Amino acid sequence: MKEFLSALPPKPSPVVEPGQNGNPGEFNVGVIGLDHGHILGMCSGLRDAGAAIVLVFDRDTEKAAAFAKQFGAHIARSEEEVLSAKNIHMIASAAVPCMRGPLGIRAMQAGKDYFVDKTPFTTKAQIAQARAVCRETGRRYFCYFSERLHSEAGVLAGYLIDAGVIGQVLQVDGFGPHRIGDPASRPEWFWKKRESGGILCDIGSHQIEQFLFYTKAVNASVVSARIANYAHPHAPEFEDFGDAMLTADNGATNYYRVDWFTAKGLSSWGDGRTILLGTDGHMELRKFVNLAASGEDKRGEMVLWADEDGEHRICAQGLTGFPFFGQMILDCLCRTERAMTQKHIFTAAELCIACEEKAAVVEGSGILPVYA
Amino acid sequence: MKEFLSALPPKPSPVVEPGQNGNPGEFNVGVIGLDHGHILGMCSGLRDAGAAIVLVFDRDTEKAAAFAKQFGAHIARSEEEVLSAKNIHMIASAAVPCMRGPLGIRAMQAGKDYFVDKTPFTTKAQIAQARAVCRETGRRYFCYFSERLHSEAGVLAGYLIDAGVIGQVLQVDGFGPHRIGDPASRPEWFWKKRESGGILCDIGSHQIEQFLFYTKAVNASVVSARIANYAHPHAPEFEDFGDAMLTADNGATNYYRVDWFTAKGLSSWGDGRTILLGTDGHMELRKFVNLAASGEDKRGEMVLWADEDGEHRICAQGLTGFPFFGQMILDCLCRTERAMTQKHIFTAAELCIACEEKAAVVEGSGILPVYA
Repeated sequence: MKEFLSALPPKPSPVVEPGQNGNPGEFNVGVIGLDHGHILGMCSGLRDAGAAIVLVFDRDTEKAAAFAKQFGAHIARSEEEVLSAKNIHMIASAAVPCMRGPLGIRAMQAGKDYFVDKTPFTTKAQIAQARAVCRETGRRYFCYFSERLHSEAGVLAGYLIDAGVIGQVLQVDGFGPHRIGDPASRPEWFWKKRESGGILCDIGSHQIEQFLFYTKAVNASVVSARIANYAHPHAPEFEDFGDAMLTADNGATNYYRVDWFTAKGLSSWGDGRTILLGTDGHMELRKFVNLAASGEDKRGEMVLWADEDGEHRICAQGLTGFPFFGQMILDCLCRTERAMTQKHIFTAAELCIACEEKAAVVEGSGILPVYA
Repeated sequence: MKEFLSALPPKPSPVVEPGQNGNPGEFNVGVIGLDHGHILGMCSGLRDAGAAIVLVFDRDTEKAAAFAKQFGAHIARSEEEVLSAKNIHMIASAAVPCMRGPLGIRAMQAGKDYFVDKTPFTTKAQIAQARAVCRETGRRYFCYFSERLHSEAGVLAGYLIDAGVIGQVLQVDGFGPHRIGDPASRPEWFWKKRESGGILCDIGSHQIEQFLFYTKAVNASVVSARIANYAHPHAPEFEDFGDAMLTADNGATNYYRVDWFTAKGLSSWGDGRTILLGTDGHMELRKFVNLAASGEDKRGEMVLWADEDGEHRICAQGLTGFPFFGQMILDCLCRTERAMTQKHIFTAAELCIACEEKAAVVEGSGILPVYA
């Protein structure tokens, strides 16, 4: 164990110099669309890797002002002002999901690389267009799959799997429960399938990305998928439950379940888990909370596994940092694919939409108000 | 929590008087077929509930002698001697899976109730015949679904769910990994699908029984199922991996995965888990080991959940006992259905066979030696 920990890659340092006193630096980001709170994680990650967040636009001027203050950015008067700013390398966005693809097209056509919140697309047509525009412009379309990229347990698991501790990964199981909170606090688009993409496409995208990554699969097919609306009859398009089985081209399998049923009493927004079955062991990630544990064990970012030698656990907090952000910046500056390949992102996006397309609505009895 | 614990049903006491000095008692059991070690758990449970294990037959006379010594039973010279013994109420068996159904027919036709290891059947034709013979003879066909019935975490979860702590159960996820151990130590039938029933039918039967029980479902349908042989090419019929999705008639859903990949270093034969998603919370059972925990937390039989009020955990060891066995004895003596209904047993058995019938073989690349 000690040997392994001392062989971990070093925690990432900034890869570029940020600008001083609100001035642009070596890698500058303009932000358009603050609809999802993930934009804060996206920009914090970028800033920690040395990027400067220089310009922001949102139709909600109050939101834009708060964001500008937090990141030392200037407020733009229009999307166009951000897209055309000469010193900006990357456009980052957490717009409403159905707007993310079209904005990415505009960003790439304006000569910028693009970094968008998950889910990166809501239709296959959007992906086809983005693929074409990537080819034409040579620009990148990155996605913030935060449940792996911004989780030290997720990063550590990648290192452990590469080190072969559980052998070849045969299956990835993902549980992505979320807290819905006060329904009145949710924006209109949250309840509309065409705008959010649906549960398998939206929060399911994390799960599929992890499956592909941990199994080193190039592609996969959707075997089966289900969606349901068990408890939100006021929003007939809303899916509060979804699950799916996928099989990868290399024979590895996946199951994932996503839902909006996190209980009020949980000390986190969701008891997200990843369970990996390998030929030589199994591994579990308890990313956000270690359910009902006490003391130090209560922390999330727990990685637990059993292998040939015994049972092990590591709390990954402070251990790995988040190498994705610096790698992405270097990919943009050097036109490489260190952070992740463009193909991987489009494949994950396609598969989560394929899940929605294939999903059967769970037929319930009168007991459960199922959306049909 | 204290209130809830004080309201638990009392731990079960013996329901009948066992015979003294090797004599028959109020409820007497004859045993035929010691092929699976589960027979020890079955008979311990019966004995703790007051039954006398009076007679045993197995073609392996050494095995029969060891069993007879352990349970104070007499050794019979033939199956027929056990079936025709006048003082015997119940035949218990852990014969090779494909022999369990036919033996049950003979037992019921001999006027005995029957208690068989899981999986209770390996073909649908066997179930149809057992249904008919149950009707004709009025005898019962019980099954040892040990992962719920002989697990205090499993029993406690039933009480908690009945008390409504997580609301209505929307989904049950079951993980049933097993250790294969030294392949040479496994009998021939273990590797033959027609004899073992296959992984979804055999160890999958536990999972389906739990799904039906915890969701209070009457029936379910198989949505999708997969089987694979990733790592045992010497036994081309063997399935070392299987999983399935089921949907119940009341709208609840199930996913389960079973496999033979428990690592050497795990301190248990399998990190069996049950994860229950409810409308008002979620619950997890860590039945056999609390992976990589230390001290007291290391024990299995852990029940953890989050509800409206917070996060909770109980180690169920010593808390509930195993009420199934006494209930089953009383069902036999009083012709009631306290332990479980006959319909529930047959439904679980049918569904696990339906999973095998529906299962697609995982198509793998050259990397994974997949059975096809």
